[in-house]
Amino acid sequence: MIDRYKYIEIDKIWLDENKLLLWQKTELAVLKARAHLGDGISREEYERINQSLKENPANIKWWKAKDEEIHHDLNAFIQERIRFIPKELQKHFHQGMTSYDTEEPAFAKMVKDSIEIVERYYFELEKVLEEMAMKYRYTIMNGRTHGQEAEMQSFGKRCLTWLQDLRISFENLKKSKENLRFSKLSGAIGNYGGITPAIEVEALEFLDFKPQYGVTQIMPRELYAPIAQGLSQLVATINKIALTIRLGARSGRPINQEPFTKKQTGSSAMPHKKNTISTEQMEGMCRMAKAYAMAIMENIQTWEERAIEQSCVERVFWPDLFHVTTRVLKVMKRVLEGLVVYPNNMLQEIHESRGCYASSHAKEILKRLGFDFNEAYRIVQLAAFNAFESSREEELPKSFDEADKLITMDIDVFYKKPVSIREMISKGKLKISLQLSATKEEVQKWNNKLLEVFRNPKNLELWKNIFLPSYLLRNESTLYSRILGII
Amino acid sequence: MIDRYKYIEIDKIWLDENKLLLWQKTELAVLKARAHLGDGISREEYERINQSLKENPANIKWWKAKDEEIHHDLNAFIQERIRFIPKELQKHFHQGMTSYDTEEPAFAKMVKDSIEIVERYYFELEKVLEEMAMKYRYTIMNGRTHGQEAEMQSFGKRCLTWLQDLRISFENLKKSKENLRFSKLSGAIGNYGGITPAIEVEALEFLDFKPQYGVTQIMPRELYAPIAQGLSQLVATINKIALTIRLGARSGRPINQEPFTKKQTGSSAMPHKKNTISTEQMEGMCRMAKAYAMAIMENIQTWEERAIEQSCVERVFWPDLFHVTTRVLKVMKRVLEGLVVYPNNMLQEIHESRGCYASSHAKEILKRLGFDFNEAYRIVQLAAFNAFESSREEELPKSFDEADKLITMDIDVFYKKPVSIREMISKGKLKISLQLSATKEEVQKWNNKLLEVFRNPKNLELWKNIFLPSYLLRNESTLYSRILGII
Amino acid sequence: MIDRYKYIEIDKIWLDENKLLLWQKTELAVLKARAHLGDGISREEYERINQSLKENPANIKWWKAKDEEIHHDLNAFIQERIRFIPKELQKHFHQGMTSYDTEEPAFAKMVKDSIEIVERYYFELEKVLEEMAMKYRYTIMNGRTHGQEAEMQSFGKRCLTWLQDLRISFENLKKSKENLRFSKLSGAIGNYGGITPAIEVEALEFLDFKPQYGVTQIMPRELYAPIAQGLSQLVATINKIALTIRLGARSGRPINQEPFTKKQTGSSAMPHKKNTISTEQMEGMCRMAKAYAMAIMENIQTWEERAIEQSCVERVFWPDLFHVTTRVLKVMKRVLEGLVVYPNNMLQEIHESRGCYASSHAKEILKRLGFDFNEAYRIVQLAAFNAFESSREEELPKSFDEADKLITMDIDVFYKKPVSIREMISKGKLKISLQLSATKEEVQKWNNKLLEVFRNPKNLELWKNIFLPSYLLRNESTLYSRILGII
Amino acid sequence: MIDRYKYIEIDKIWLDENKLLLWQKTELAVLKARAHLGDGISREEYERINQSLKENPANIKWWKAKDEEIHHDLNAFIQERIRFIPKELQKHFHQGMTSYDTEEPAFAKMVKDSIEIVERYYFELEKVLEEMAMKYRYTIMNGRTHGQEAEMQSFGKRCLTWLQDLRISFENLKKSKENLRFSKLSGAIGNYGGITPAIEVEALEFLDFKPQYGVTQIMPRELYAPIAQGLSQLVATINKIALTIRLGARSGRPINQEPFTKKQTGSSAMPHKKNTISTEQMEGMCRMAKAYAMAIMENIQTWEERAIEQSCVERVFWPDLFHVTTRVLKVMKRVLEGLVVYPNNMLQEIHESRGCYASSHAKEILKRLGFDFNEAYRIVQLAAFNAFESSREEELPKSFDEADKLITMDIDVFYKKPVSIREMISKGKLKISLQLSATKEEVQKWNNKLLEVFRNPKNLELWKNIFLPSYLLRNESTLYSRILGII
Repeated sequence: MIDRYKYIEIDKIWLDENKLLLWQKTELAVLKARAHLGDGISREEYERINQSLKENPANIKWWKAKDEEIHHDLNAFIQERIRFIPKELQKHFHQGMTSYDTEEPAFAKMVKDSIEIVERYYFELEKVLEEMAMKYRYTIMNGRTHGQEAEMQSFGKRCLTWLQDLRISFENLKKSKENLRFSKLSGAIGNYGGITPAIEVEALEFLDFKPQYGVTQIMPRELYAPIAQGLSQLVATINKIALTIRLGARSGRPINQEPFTKKQTGSSAMPHKKNTISTEQMEGMCRMAKAYAMAIMENIQTWEERAIEQSCVERVFWPDLFHVTTRVLKVMKRVLEGLVVYPNNMLQEIHESRGCYASSHAKEILKRLGFDFNEAYRIVQLAAFNAFESSREEELPKSFDEADKLITMDIDVFYKKPVSIREMISKGKLKISLQLSATKEEVQKWNNKLLEVFRNPKNLELWKNIFLPSYLLRNESTLYSRILGII
Repeated sequence: MIDRYKYIEIDKIWLDENKLLLWQKTELAVLKARAHLGDGISREEYERINQSLKENPANIKWWKAKDEEIHHDLNAFIQERIRFIPKELQKHFHQGMTSYDTEEPAFAKMVKDSIEIVERYYFELEKVLEEMAMKYRYTIMNGRTHGQEAEMQSFGKRCLTWLQDLRISFENLKKSKENLRFSKLSGAIGNYGGITPAIEVEALEFLDFKPQYGVTQIMPRELYAPIAQGLSQLVATINKIALTIRLGARSGRPINQEPFTKKQTGSSAMPHKKNTISTEQMEGMCRMAKAYAMAIMENIQTWEERAIEQSCVERVFWPDLFHVTTRVLKVMKRVLEGLVVYPNNMLQEIHESRGCYASSHAKEILKRLGFDFNEAYRIVQLAAFNAFESSREEELPKSFDEADKLITMDIDVFYKKPVSIREMISKGKLKISLQLSATKEEVQKWNNKLLEVFRNPKNLELWKNIFLPSYLLRNESTLYSRILGII
Repeated sequence: MIDRYKYIEIDKIWLDENKLLLWQKTELAVLKARAHLGDGISREEYERINQSLKENPANIKWWKAKDEEIHHDLNAFIQERIRFIPKELQKHFHQGMTSYDTEEPAFAKMVKDSIEIVERYYFELEKVLEEMAMKYRYTIMNGRTHGQEAEMQSFGKRCLTWLQDLRISFENLKKSKENLRFSKLSGAIGNYGGITPAIEVEALEFLDFKPQYGVTQIMPRELYAPIAQGLSQLVATINKIALTIRLGARSGRPINQEPFTKKQTGSSAMPHKKNTISTEQMEGMCRMAKAYAMAIMENIQTWEERAIEQSCVERVFWPDLFHVTTRVLKVMKRVLEGLVVYPNNMLQEIHESRGCYASSHAKEILKRLGFDFNEAYRIVQLAAFNAFESSREEELPKSFDEADKLITMDIDVFYKKPVSIREMISKGKLKISLQLSATKEEVQKWNNKLLEVFRNPKNLELWKNIFLPSYLLRNESTLYSRILGII
Repeated sequence: MIDRYKYIEIDKIWLDENKLLLWQKTELAVLKARAHLGDGISREEYERINQSLKENPANIKWWKAKDEEIHHDLNAFIQERIRFIPKELQKHFHQGMTSYDTEEPAFAKMVKDSIEIVERYYFELEKVLEEMAMKYRYTIMNGRTHGQEAEMQSFGKRCLTWLQDLRISFENLKKSKENLRFSKLSGAIGNYGGITPAIEVEALEFLDFKPQYGVTQIMPRELYAPIAQGLSQLVATINKIALTIRLGARSGRPINQEPFTKKQTGSSAMPHKKNTISTEQMEGMCRMAKAYAMAIMENIQTWEERAIEQSCVERVFWPDLFHVTTRVLKVMKRVLEGLVVYPNNMLQEIHESRGCYASSHAKEILKRLGFDFNEAYRIVQLAAFNAFESSREEELPKSFDEADKLITMDIDVFYKKPVSIREMISKGKLKISLQLSATKEEVQKWNNKLLEVFRNPKNLELWKNIFLPSYLLRNESTLYSRILGII
């Protein structure tokens, strides 16, 4: 990963220094188990090897040079290490083992440790969202489906959704993480040519693993693919949140904006810009994570008792995937913590939606008040279309002159209060619309019926009520109690 | 492909009926070439076979039954066909050929014919965009980068961009289509075990192909992968356009909307909805096309002189990819032809952007008028931030009661004219902002200097001019002339 | 999916007929819950609606025509259904619901039912592998890593590996299947605008679901992506097995072959062929499954409280993914049940591997007998290289004449017994090799030392023992007991 | 990219040092064009800026620190650079430009330069293959389809196929490279708000580009996606070659092997191993390249006049893709140059294929000699099955004792000459086979007829001839002349 997107915590895990240390841990665990079970090496011999190696950390440079000579990094490691083992004890080192006996537990440990970092940042992010949900419990806004304003909700409810989606993806990752409980020391083709099953059990236990039975030379990559998929999915969920933030930040009337530092510049050309660069980058990170996970999934494929197709992919893509995942978690936390929320704009949006945020309730209440199924639907649809019909004619300028005039025109025309379907319907003021097929007669009939119905003050009361947050959001408390345990 | 997304024109090409007809064409072309070159069959014999087969179209049912028995669809085809060939001439049929000699020219032809359909719809779409570009040449709007309003442009210019992006992807597809000029008849491993190079040349010419030299049993899938990628990229470009339409259609103040038929219903719950379902679907179609193209790319991989991994993918994914491509082309044409454009909303957006659409010009002109590099940037940035600072305090309701009150409040507060950076700067009315680091003293100094500068009427004239379309869009004519050939 | 790869069992689940039936089930479950909880409809009214609808199955044709008119399949469904509901009860139908309240439980049920079919075939396949493992418990062969013969194993052990890899992927799928326990009825934006939380709980229980809290208009696609990934991974594992079968079936000296029916033809050109078409096709199927799963993963992405990007992908890719998964399970079962195994060829391979199948043991024993770490490695390596050095000079023919002569040559030269490293080492017969850097002096020294060591009969006994299956496979019993529970 | 897989040549292109140098080049080209066209800056002023900047290379550290402060790398670059520009000239620098005006030409140049490196290595690889094709022109082997031995070919012909497949993929890459002729300087939304079309033409010409008309703030990523796809496809083709080499290197009787250095070690456990690690790694590299290309393809998608999703992907994936491509080209050249070819093993394979390498010719000749269509096919199929029928019974050992005995058995049984279908057919020695449905009577009838036919010496001559390389490979000369221009 390039420096720009690299996290030191992840990097440390995947550095050669750490890898060789972990390889050494495997070797020592095997020797310890052997000593313990009396398999050709005494405890004292084990201790001598153990001490020699710990006192002499691996020389990465020496090791790399040897690797280039013999084209085998694990053999190079062995040669580097036995330099520090007393001659008479050298035969014990890596005895009866194949490279991937040494490497598999180390690899699984690196993945495990990286996931722990992901988990830590995940929980921080979860906490931010829990707080946001509480903070915005009564901050009303229009939900949007298909980009169109739909029913009213609280911004807190939207935060709850984000939280739950993250929880699903995190839960999914956690399930796949269970695959990391297992590893292997069962030799070149997995049938214990070198190390016995008993030593495997014990040595792996020192390393905090249990044996995976039935492997080949390597652990089946079926175990790891779901982890990469899980990480990629977690990134995808964060990116889904990012996308919704970007959509809310569109200028005109933003409902939220990314935090913007005082010295930040938005564009080299246009000084007014506050670009959503952090959330946009998450889309790119999501593309990367998906690419990594796909290749890691393809690593399942190999020949017979293994070939080494998977190795280069794993060397590059696992750390990169963890860098990317860590990044989106950390950046999203920063974005959400500093998120600039505009309740006034949310409110203006509600008012300008002309009551349509309650259109489904309007339809249902009309049915209750005696309108039939289709009629109720069409009345509300017509009212909504009426409410949004433009008063100003739409004209296309024919020249720059005409266009210039538009810039200096009196713009009062834009600033008049919208009419709401609440009044339009309860006062029987529907009009025909070119966009819908209702005839003049139908519309007249509907208006008469509506006036009739809403002459009854009880009906009118009922009607007005459905446009209020206390009514529309009445059931969100269930979400708070179910999701946050709030009562 | 499911019926819902199937196009009859594409379907006809990929039906078994057509495939068998094309297989027969290959067989007959070889016989004809043989007869012509005097290779063991007379012209008269060829004619007899030709006639028998043409008079007796393949029986698909018989063929399928045989295929299930012998697990080889091409052998089943041969057995079906020789039923109608005079006994003494049967030995000529498929003589010296391998299955893929017969199948490759047929397959390439199916791809070719499908691309022709794609081309036809592509050109129709291109034409719609050319017309739109002309129609909206002076329809001004704010361009958007990062979702934020940027500089002013015409909507016609945006159409030109769409047109050009499509042309790039189409050009790319056209280049890859050249690979379809080639095919093969060179036998089981591609070294002319059966058919001679001379017969191959001639027979392929009857089928409108040239020989691809150096193939194995099959044509290398390297030839076809770029076509699938090209189709997928064309879909991606259309989806990019779709995405911009969706963004423009977001309710609140849409600048465009998908056509909506009079009887259409937007949502089963919310009658007011006009959802952007056609353009949203394109995102799904794009995901599908990408998936198809990826698998077809993977078909390059095979063993030695071929194995048959590619076959099932090709049977399913090629027709499906063409259905998807055809669909997005046709639907996008319908969407663009019927696109509802709102110039008034575009205009209101311009006015509400408070002059920021010219912020880069403002910055440049300040530099010209004596402000230094950083100063100019920071003045315009501050003016922009001032212009958007909310007058109403942002408060979060603490209960449903408070929220309910917001619904019935007097909303006049929302309807006041925006101030523009045009005036703010030329009249020296900058204020400090909590979001930027400029100090009170700095701001005061800037205001004084601005007043000084703009006391000069020539400077003021210059200043006002940069906010006009005739100035800002002055160079779009180059685009019209370069892209449409308009002068 | 095209007919060729379609399974009737899967098809039935995804047909419109079944979908509409499931939609109806949702609607009725809601009405039943309402009646039960006394929410505006009596039990008797519910029963009347229930009966009317069950007596009048949906008319698919009518529904499709209506869908084409109004561009909304769920609204078309409602209109189709209320035709059969008594006028006065129509208002209850779909009351307070949004399309995806109706659709989500139906969709989840279709996925659930499809997985059950997958499970059934999976268990059949598992059983075949368990039997194979037992049958081939003592059938010895050379394991292969990197395509090269490695240590000896039983073919039964290879079957155990296949079984375990499948179990991992199946376990992974099972975990993701848990996500199907949940669904939603919480309205247009997921905050229970229409249906109350209490009714949701009850209605979903009738449908065998629990509520997913915090959803939007739709269930988050995070729940389904892992299922598609899981299916794709299962296919990948089967394809891994297929690949190993293909590798074993390579002509020359195949160790296994796909079953071949008596009337099957392998190639239209070459009558001798027994092609591995079934296992090769799995590679193609795997490419398809991966493509499907990738797009379904991308369906996570959507806007705010939903847009409809995911719909077309799901309509096509879910059933197709299930067809593909079902296919590879069924075909693999057939292939394994009928697998033609050649123990003689396995044995010949062992003999021709010249003892190298025990090379790691040879190395370890030399270390035990006093050779140092590097020496032991290099002696065995040299012996192996010696053993495979060709006796016949490698010459390249310079003309067809020379090539023709090779065809009619006396081929006795090919048929001589191989020498084994077993003898070469125990008898001190190492020679220098051009491919390795050991000098003549070194080799001489080694030979002398080897002769010395193996003069001791105990050492020789030890030595010979390591080349025997009873020694090499001694620990496979652990695998049988751990994996199959056999003792 | 990690050090292990990094190429210095590629690295140098993508380093920050080079990027900033290229950014500076863009800025200077614009100033030069301005000076040249008399656009507000004199030639002398341009020269002063030019000189100041060239004398003071960018300070990467200073730049990075500034970037972290203002979150905008291009703005940080400007601030770094203007430090060295005389105060009064600073206003000219980056005047009227947006970040991507500066960045796009630089980016395109980096891609262009990287492709040139790819091209250089490609041509080296091509040359190696041309030489191999000549060298192995008469080296006979069995082609393989479906892993099964098919017809005979020369190894030279296989090299020609590799060459041609590479050429196709390279040609495809070259076509896409044409997209790099274009770039842009057309401002924040692509309509020349800052720089005029005339200056763009001239400045781009200094940088060796032509303007792309109709862009947004950025070049459409449609131009670059095909390049990434092209690189990925080139890697896929190389991997296809690698796969065939791996298949040929399978131990038992390898026909080729990767070069193996004298000090190389194949396995830490098994000293005899010569693993195909280089060609296996190509499969991993291919997975990586595909992943990179896919994400770069997805970069086409963006919002309106651009958002910045693509940036992080491009920073990481373009250099990584070039590292991977360079690697496989270089490694494949090394593998092919050092490829160890075993003509003796190829020959033994031919002899052991029992004449089946000419089975299609055998079938055709039988048809010519009076056997009917189906008969000819079935006779050859039966002969082939007979030829491979095992003489030794296939038995499964029931215990380790039985298995141990197999190791010490007399293995002479394995070493007997194979019978060929050549004799079996010409001498009428067909037998019934359990695997085929021919009856005893049929077989008898066929044998009689065969004896009859081959009593005629002319027929026998004809028959023997089809088994000779001079006959079977007679048309390969066409391939040599068409592909290499050899006559």
